[in-house]
Amino acid sequence: MTLTVLFAAKSESWSVYEAALTAAFSEAELNADLVLEAEPDTVDYIIYAPDSELQDFTLYTSCKAVLNLWAGVENVVGNESLTQPLARMVDPGMTAGMVEYVTAHVMRHHLDLDRYIKLTEPLWEPKMPKLAEDRVVTILGLGALGGACATTLASLGFQVRGWSRSQKSIDGVATFSAGPGLAEALPGTEILVLLTPLTDDTENIIDANALSLLAEGAVIINPGRGPLIDDDALLNALDDCQISHATLDVFREEPLPPNHPFWNDPRVTVTPHVASFTRPKTASRQIAANIQRSENGEPLIGLVDREAGY
Amino acid sequence: MTLTVLFAAKSESWSVYEAALTAAFSEAELNADLVLEAEPDTVDYIIYAPDSELQDFTLYTSCKAVLNLWAGVENVVGNESLTQPLARMVDPGMTAGMVEYVTAHVMRHHLDLDRYIKLTEPLWEPKMPKLAEDRVVTILGLGALGGACATTLASLGFQVRGWSRSQKSIDGVATFSAGPGLAEALPGTEILVLLTPLTDDTENIIDANALSLLAEGAVIINPGRGPLIDDDALLNALDDCQISHATLDVFREEPLPPNHPFWNDPRVTVTPHVASFTRPKTASRQIAANIQRSENGEPLIGLVDREAGY
Repeated sequence: MTLTVLFAAKSESWSVYEAALTAAFSEAELNADLVLEAEPDTVDYIIYAPDSELQDFTLYTSCKAVLNLWAGVENVVGNESLTQPLARMVDPGMTAGMVEYVTAHVMRHHLDLDRYIKLTEPLWEPKMPKLAEDRVVTILGLGALGGACATTLASLGFQVRGWSRSQKSIDGVATFSAGPGLAEALPGTEILVLLTPLTDDTENIIDANALSLLAEGAVIINPGRGPLIDDDALLNALDDCQISHATLDVFREEPLPPNHPFWNDPRVTVTPHVASFTRPKTASRQIAANIQRSENGEPLIGLVDREAGY
Repeated sequence: MTLTVLFAAKSESWSVYEAALTAAFSEAELNADLVLEAEPDTVDYIIYAPDSELQDFTLYTSCKAVLNLWAGVENVVGNESLTQPLARMVDPGMTAGMVEYVTAHVMRHHLDLDRYIKLTEPLWEPKMPKLAEDRVVTILGLGALGGACATTLASLGFQVRGWSRSQKSIDGVATFSAGPGLAEALPGTEILVLLTPLTDDTENIIDANALSLLAEGAVIINPGRGPLIDDDALLNALDDCQISHATLDVFREEPLPPNHPFWNDPRVTVTPHVASFTRPKTASRQIAANIQRSENGEPLIGLVDREAGY
């Protein structure tokens, strides 16, 4: 039997994914038609981007799973018409890209590279930098992305702490969990990396109180989700020198509006949502693997827990 | 019997090392007097900085080894009055610092962080960066420092090549050796890291020809020794866009003179010889360990091969 797989995303995504998905299906020996349109009740799987026009899943009565193209599902979990199993994208290429972004910016702040990169006149003032073993880096979120970053930073010698909703265990990482754990994880933190999913519980998790718990002059790196941070509290903490720098890749509104105070603030580095791209080749393989798992009655990789919200 | 250990370095070093060496000797249960002056023929070991006033070793007839405080020995190996075994500093703290410097700058250039760090007006133009697995990084020199950097960069996913005088073997690293090996290692190299010792054979090893072999737009990182690079050839290669950026920590003259063209060139980042500091605590332990090894008739760590020059 041939499976019908509906691709529901903006049209520009089709040109990026068509060849990669076709190749991945063929590689996996999946007997599947990849289509842009179909009678809803004939569709077996939906490959889905949350900004697609498809918002009402009611008529997709035969659909066995919805496979999200994005890692974040905060715009999908609230959709009550979507009752099928829903999988987040867990793309090895995206994980690799995220680990590289986080490693690059942690190393940059650890060694204060900006001091040299921004130099505009001769200055020869050697200062012995701290070693990674004397630097505390804390990661909020220990899922596929945060866990991989924690492991890499620990392998580079940093004192790594990790915080997540449920208690996790990672070699070389001091782990803390929701509730009072956050107030235990933050004190002494010199570099804070935000990779926790956005849920009702984590919106504004980095507020004035959380910022005040960090080591004085701490750095924030946010490649996770914009609303994890209370922007006004962050700006105040920068003014107070409680926070020395923020490197932000995600924002409440994207693109970040040109008049936003984060632009041109020398204490803020804005990157335009480049920390984690879904990589078509590896993401397509992941989708093919999930269709196979579903057909074999195996659990989906990245299956979303609707109650937890991710 | 109490050993006499002469500390021969500039006086400012004494304040840095006195406590650390005393602690390391005590930790190692070494029965030794650490002194700033002694009758030459009573001295058992000399802890030595090449910029010390001590240049004539002839009278130190009982000296069993000279223990260099620096990793580089190019200013010592030519001293014909120094006939005792000579050890380079191989300091785990210095190695860690070097790995951190190299990792930070490789990641910085890999992801072109400067583009965001130097931004002076709003610019939202996301570009999907290459993954490390698609980036070729070549390291010249696979000693304690270069080898550790190669291993770390390979663990981060880069395609790492290494070149050294004698053929080495490192997991995950494609290795090449002196002679025609350099012309094999350089083509396709996008980031080149210089960590080879300075010898007659390696002075100006990065000349116009070597630069022309690299991938177009390659980046040079030099935390090794200034004279490894032909400065004029580098400036020409920057003008031709064959090299897109050079991050230099060491120079033929240090401090780098204020009128040197490297200053203020936006394609050159100058760091003031900060890539590798000897760390008093770990270096002192290394010296104590070497005195013990010598007393036990074991080979010194970092023993210099006078013919090779390092």
